[in-house]
Amino acid sequence: MEGYLKEFRPPHRILMGPGPSEVHPRVLQAMTAPLLGHMDPEFFSVMQGVVDMLRLVFQTSNELTLPLSGTGTAGMEAALCNMLEPQDTVVIAVNGFFGTRMIDIATRCGAQVHTVSYPWGRPVEPEPLEKELRKHSKVKAVGVVHGETSTGILSPLPELANVTHNYGALFIADAVTPLGGHEVALDQWDVDVCYSATQKCLGAPPGMSPISLGPRATEVLRSRKSLVQSLYLNLVDLETYWHRSHVYHHTTPISMVYALREALRRLVEEGLENRFQRHARNAAALRGGLEALGLKLFADPKYQLNPLTTVLVPEGVDDARVRSRLLLEFNIEIGGGLGELQGRAWRIGLMGDSCTETNVFALLSALERILPREGYEVGRGVSMAAAQQVLADYDSEGSSAR
Amino acid sequence: MEGYLKEFRPPHRILMGPGPSEVHPRVLQAMTAPLLGHMDPEFFSVMQGVVDMLRLVFQTSNELTLPLSGTGTAGMEAALCNMLEPQDTVVIAVNGFFGTRMIDIATRCGAQVHTVSYPWGRPVEPEPLEKELRKHSKVKAVGVVHGETSTGILSPLPELANVTHNYGALFIADAVTPLGGHEVALDQWDVDVCYSATQKCLGAPPGMSPISLGPRATEVLRSRKSLVQSLYLNLVDLETYWHRSHVYHHTTPISMVYALREALRRLVEEGLENRFQRHARNAAALRGGLEALGLKLFADPKYQLNPLTTVLVPEGVDDARVRSRLLLEFNIEIGGGLGELQGRAWRIGLMGDSCTETNVFALLSALERILPREGYEVGRGVSMAAAQQVLADYDSEGSSAR
Repeated sequence: MEGYLKEFRPPHRILMGPGPSEVHPRVLQAMTAPLLGHMDPEFFSVMQGVVDMLRLVFQTSNELTLPLSGTGTAGMEAALCNMLEPQDTVVIAVNGFFGTRMIDIATRCGAQVHTVSYPWGRPVEPEPLEKELRKHSKVKAVGVVHGETSTGILSPLPELANVTHNYGALFIADAVTPLGGHEVALDQWDVDVCYSATQKCLGAPPGMSPISLGPRATEVLRSRKSLVQSLYLNLVDLETYWHRSHVYHHTTPISMVYALREALRRLVEEGLENRFQRHARNAAALRGGLEALGLKLFADPKYQLNPLTTVLVPEGVDDARVRSRLLLEFNIEIGGGLGELQGRAWRIGLMGDSCTETNVFALLSALERILPREGYEVGRGVSMAAAQQVLADYDSEGSSAR
Repeated sequence: MEGYLKEFRPPHRILMGPGPSEVHPRVLQAMTAPLLGHMDPEFFSVMQGVVDMLRLVFQTSNELTLPLSGTGTAGMEAALCNMLEPQDTVVIAVNGFFGTRMIDIATRCGAQVHTVSYPWGRPVEPEPLEKELRKHSKVKAVGVVHGETSTGILSPLPELANVTHNYGALFIADAVTPLGGHEVALDQWDVDVCYSATQKCLGAPPGMSPISLGPRATEVLRSRKSLVQSLYLNLVDLETYWHRSHVYHHTTPISMVYALREALRRLVEEGLENRFQRHARNAAALRGGLEALGLKLFADPKYQLNPLTTVLVPEGVDDARVRSRLLLEFNIEIGGGLGELQGRAWRIGLMGDSCTETNVFALLSALERILPREGYEVGRGVSMAAAQQVLADYDSEGSSAR
């Protein structure tokens, strides 16, 4: 019998990789609602609710805020190809895999791409960026990855946006991983273009990419001389469908919009600040536990991304075998290294509904079982004791601060 | 209270527009399965099953067959931007809205675009295409819409592919609407690139676009001089992720792949030929009923698309008011006219799970109630009697043929 004829009974994984994160049953259930057409007035109100909630999460009043019908990579492509025209100069700050991807996409847009490189594991800092900006007479845009999912680094956006605007360029930020897990305050930080994805800290399945354009970016979009090279991702037509006369552009992924709506409702119920705190608290516990195992964290401690922690694979331990045991014996998925870190690091996600104390202990306990079989001895329970201590400290600091 | 805080209880629409079509509960239910990661070996077998079934539906052994992470418009963009390089000459046959969209996308790819226009409501025929091909020294590709969703026309692909190949060009076919509702036989017809969408006759929600490339197209892809202008849709990397080493490209929309798998399983269970017959039979009944109401079908009778029927809005009848009444009073969605036909035609879909006898009678009975209120008198039950007669004739011809 062909495999596809079998009924599909997927194992229930604990998703602690770089996304997708686990999706709450309420969100999965939302996708079982009967489909509305993409031109149905009832669906227009669903769209409106999604846009309103995205504005809350992006902390913006930007009118041009909507979810694109593609994943985070489509968001990156939309941001760059709507802002750039052939021969425009763009500066990309690179401190990991996704910065490199920005270069790739900007190159495909026909732009003149200049790069400022930072060591992997370090944040994007303003001074080298400013030095690069000073070299060019006219820079159209600067691209920066807010949270590098390849290294676990969170870069300081407000300073970077400020430097960028001093040179009259647009500031484009990739918030694929941080959005919903860290503050992303577009209006306060003066970010011109920001995009994200649904399957990380927002807690929906992968498939859509929220994007928001501020006034400068909207003006650039309206005054383009050439057509946006992608019709599918062109924000002129998408804005018309989402915000103006609802003229047909493409058939929106209805069920994905239902899921995103429900995921955003859960976020609003929890509250943004509470969600950030949850991500900070559990990430601190995870890091404490990993360090108690003698493992070395990769990211600069002052710039750690909470939803994703990178840890180096210890000498003599087989990266792939450990991940495979985690998956097959413990049903836990973590990510392998990307780019420079391939085979050298694990990427552990605590995002959205995957970001729980329970998951922290599930992973630490599994590592305590697996690592000794790789010849890497660990004391029984030490990582979990350390994680408990971090949580206790975190909570008592929190209560004394209140 | 903000609207988004309310629990979402969508009305149950009868979806008889140009897609999305209704989605069977089994397919909706498939999306509630817990998410697997996009790098999980269990997910790789899900992908394999989907690809195997897509090959059955496309009637092809093409290795490079996969669902893109975007809707049908993304499929059109992928087909054109993976095949075309700047300055390549492409000929687009236009007999409706989606042919025009092909021109738009090919232009955005930087190609030299030449057009062969056919009247709306008529098929793309080989002679004018051949005349155009004769004018150019080197044509890279010809683009044709197999089933024009704007007019309800099905064009004869085999003859068109044949002419195209006589001039050494690639044959690109848009089968967004026909796939699963009409025969689409890539290998037998020698189609080089074909794409479709999930939300029409395949019976899944919108959000993915199956695409398949034959050997000539694969060779063109491999021997490109320039990068594909879209990273998101570039088939070089997507082929690697789907068919070779599963190297990460982007996070596949996991739940949409689950839905597509279940929708394709239902198609395999029904059988391709049975599904084509179901679409033919119900479309015949619908057309019989509409004509009995005195309405005028728009598409050339010899080239009617079964999943979508276009009918002219009779003189004195308000297009928008009738569609609005259908939606609000009868919960039935039909489509309005696109482009040239805006305000002048209705587009009635009978696709996938929406393609039932029940839906034919639901619509005819609703029209019998609504049209007289527009001053357009109709005899009680005449359209339903006519549809019954068509079904009876169809079934007796079928049984005498057996």
